[in-house]
Amino acid sequence: MEWKRKDLLGLEELSREEISTILNTAKGFKEVLSRAIPVVPALRGKTIVNLFFEPSTRTITSFSLAAKRLSADSVNFSSTSSSVLKGETLLDTARNIEAMKVDGVVIRHPSPGAPHFLAKRLKSFVINGGDGAHEHPTQGLLDLFTIRERIGRIEGLKILIVGDITHSRVARSDIFGFKKLGAEVAVCGPPTLIPPGIEELGVEVYYNLDKALMDRDVIIVLRLQLERQKRGLFPSIREYRQLYGINQRRFRTLKRGALIMHPGPINRGIEIEPEVADSSCSLILNQVKNGVAVRMAVLYLLAGGEVETPS
Amino acid sequence: MEWKRKDLLGLEELSREEISTILNTAKGFKEVLSRAIPVVPALRGKTIVNLFFEPSTRTITSFSLAAKRLSADSVNFSSTSSSVLKGETLLDTARNIEAMKVDGVVIRHPSPGAPHFLAKRLKSFVINGGDGAHEHPTQGLLDLFTIRERIGRIEGLKILIVGDITHSRVARSDIFGFKKLGAEVAVCGPPTLIPPGIEELGVEVYYNLDKALMDRDVIIVLRLQLERQKRGLFPSIREYRQLYGINQRRFRTLKRGALIMHPGPINRGIEIEPEVADSSCSLILNQVKNGVAVRMAVLYLLAGGEVETPS
Amino acid sequence: MEWKRKDLLGLEELSREEISTILNTAKGFKEVLSRAIPVVPALRGKTIVNLFFEPSTRTITSFSLAAKRLSADSVNFSSTSSSVLKGETLLDTARNIEAMKVDGVVIRHPSPGAPHFLAKRLKSFVINGGDGAHEHPTQGLLDLFTIRERIGRIEGLKILIVGDITHSRVARSDIFGFKKLGAEVAVCGPPTLIPPGIEELGVEVYYNLDKALMDRDVIIVLRLQLERQKRGLFPSIREYRQLYGINQRRFRTLKRGALIMHPGPINRGIEIEPEVADSSCSLILNQVKNGVAVRMAVLYLLAGGEVETPS
Repeated sequence: MEWKRKDLLGLEELSREEISTILNTAKGFKEVLSRAIPVVPALRGKTIVNLFFEPSTRTITSFSLAAKRLSADSVNFSSTSSSVLKGETLLDTARNIEAMKVDGVVIRHPSPGAPHFLAKRLKSFVINGGDGAHEHPTQGLLDLFTIRERIGRIEGLKILIVGDITHSRVARSDIFGFKKLGAEVAVCGPPTLIPPGIEELGVEVYYNLDKALMDRDVIIVLRLQLERQKRGLFPSIREYRQLYGINQRRFRTLKRGALIMHPGPINRGIEIEPEVADSSCSLILNQVKNGVAVRMAVLYLLAGGEVETPS
Repeated sequence: MEWKRKDLLGLEELSREEISTILNTAKGFKEVLSRAIPVVPALRGKTIVNLFFEPSTRTITSFSLAAKRLSADSVNFSSTSSSVLKGETLLDTARNIEAMKVDGVVIRHPSPGAPHFLAKRLKSFVINGGDGAHEHPTQGLLDLFTIRERIGRIEGLKILIVGDITHSRVARSDIFGFKKLGAEVAVCGPPTLIPPGIEELGVEVYYNLDKALMDRDVIIVLRLQLERQKRGLFPSIREYRQLYGINQRRFRTLKRGALIMHPGPINRGIEIEPEVADSSCSLILNQVKNGVAVRMAVLYLLAGGEVETPS
Repeated sequence: MEWKRKDLLGLEELSREEISTILNTAKGFKEVLSRAIPVVPALRGKTIVNLFFEPSTRTITSFSLAAKRLSADSVNFSSTSSSVLKGETLLDTARNIEAMKVDGVVIRHPSPGAPHFLAKRLKSFVINGGDGAHEHPTQGLLDLFTIRERIGRIEGLKILIVGDITHSRVARSDIFGFKKLGAEVAVCGPPTLIPPGIEELGVEVYYNLDKALMDRDVIIVLRLQLERQKRGLFPSIREYRQLYGINQRRFRTLKRGALIMHPGPINRGIEIEPEVADSSCSLILNQVKNGVAVRMAVLYLLAGGEVETPS
């Protein structure tokens, strides 16, 4: 399949074939990453800007490393950069950056749709690095990649996403991606953190974690944003842990071979117990590792690379 | 002409020939930037430090990209860096940086003359990236380059600079540069924002914008520093906009072919209306684009490159 | 001697031979730094992360430049990075970074032992870039290198370290390093800033600076952390300067050829007078310069380079 899309804004709009193309391309790059010198010249002379209006450690580093491994240059902008402080509009900031001959922009922004807004107006390709509670497509893709790599397929798997579904762009991208590739997806969390109407995305909803965990192949544990408690969205961390934490007791009830994922950073002892996070069933560090390969694939395809990866 | 100057501190001290040499060198680099791989090996192994004591987005990015396109390494220092906080003197900071085998320093500093102070004491070349309200020579050069590229000449053009002339290092560098190359320069703004004695630089002064705009080839609109209002330097944003904003009505009165420039970031709807900023007469994004080529030329010449640009 | 150690955590645990191997390797790299293009391909494709939980300018820049000169990539993390703010544990942060295929981590952390904690748990090599008041081994090594380069030997030299010994990781690394290579080491400072039991490290203790200075070959002046005064650890800056400042009067009493060092940043006119810091006996800028070569040597050896340096 030839890649035609200019931007990567979300998994909702990608076809099954497009997702597969990205995952297959990422597989080639994962091999590159295992080499003594894990660098290919594919994007030499290209410049990628990381335009982050929310704090980030792992995503920005993952994109920066992906760019370096492809021999592209990358430049970081953060929300504390002055033009933003000086009240310049998002579009003016982006147009200015583009004028400096930039090939692609990775944007993280608190407003859902900000990447789409830029994508329509810039010639550079735009990658959504997380927009509000909307989508975080490269996280969704790396979750798909990680499971496909371990289990060999996505189709027919029973996936559970546990936690604050309402505020999670990871949950949304995961739901779109897993459904597209034929998995069954369920979500589980406190009623205050499950958005009404989520069933319309084709997912089952559980409020009781023990029931939800039965017969699952993969459990994706979301980070609890502790600051949400102040807003009364859940009663206490202690109660959350009891009702929705993946602890050792629950871990032992899982189906044989079930896998644990988490987009990080983890709150050890809150949404997940250390023994679970560090167990051999945990794919948490594989996710981080695969993130670089998946982001290489996305950068490579959007920058106009061949669908076959280069050696 | 052979390049002999160690530093670029301001346009005031440059000769007409030196300015032309920079602009001609920049023209060669602009061609480099249009290539698929916009990189030349000219400064391989050289290290440039961006020592910024004031916030900056576009200038620091423009210098960083210029360095990358020349295959130089660049390292950023910002005012929040610890040694500065720890009370080290500017000279000690710079000497320490230089001791790490640095070839050039780009400095932005709130004190006029800070770059000159360093230039005298360092062996590394020093580029003024903006010193208080004194000069911002690479901005002046890119303005000259952009107009020369569009109109073909500077000599005899009628230039108007509108806004807060008193606090603008861009205005000063523009005045020196345009006068040196034979343009007529006028300034216009509220009396509180025009420095007394500015006529001594050979510019005409207007307080009435509609009069000032008559028969101009180029209008350079300065950013209104909104924080100046608190200090009582202008009555209200609304009044400023009415008296000194480049709006559509005024835009329509301009001479045919007149061009609009702005050093950015722009306050849309204050000093300039969006329809003007985004019109085909606006060179604002060309300025940003050309900034990289001009900074490549300056870095290249100061680092000891041949006056002919390399392929 | 073949290099076998995975990490550089402190000079306390290094053998005399290991220290010599680093210094000899650094000597080769210092020659590289004097070339027109001061870069070797030794670590091409390797990635080094600078994980700094305390502010730093010169150390992080020195490590970054050292990595660039070796053709390695380096990525900076600072304490304001979001995952750290989000309460992720140090180990999870480090493991995540490591999962992105990182070869080495340079860590600065306020807790003594933090680098050791990581070193035991990561496959990547770990370099201590300063851990609380414990050690700062690359500073100790560059001090050794700088004196050996100037005087030709360490053995038998009489070294004095002046200032706040209690809170100084530099003092500790210096003491271990100089003692290992056969120098005599004394310390001098106010009784409140000399840790009880320091004699057990084999150093002499002085409270009277004029006595301490007699017959010394090298004086290492420590930075006075001005914020310690608030905690009552010394009476006043004025008194500190009088009793423990290296001023011109004291400077004139030094043995012929005695050398002055300081890890920087210096408080001019407090612990050291400008005339002393800038004199021809001062090695302060040599220390900074040599820091890059020494860090190249450490990165190179830990990354698995040959003990002979490459051309």
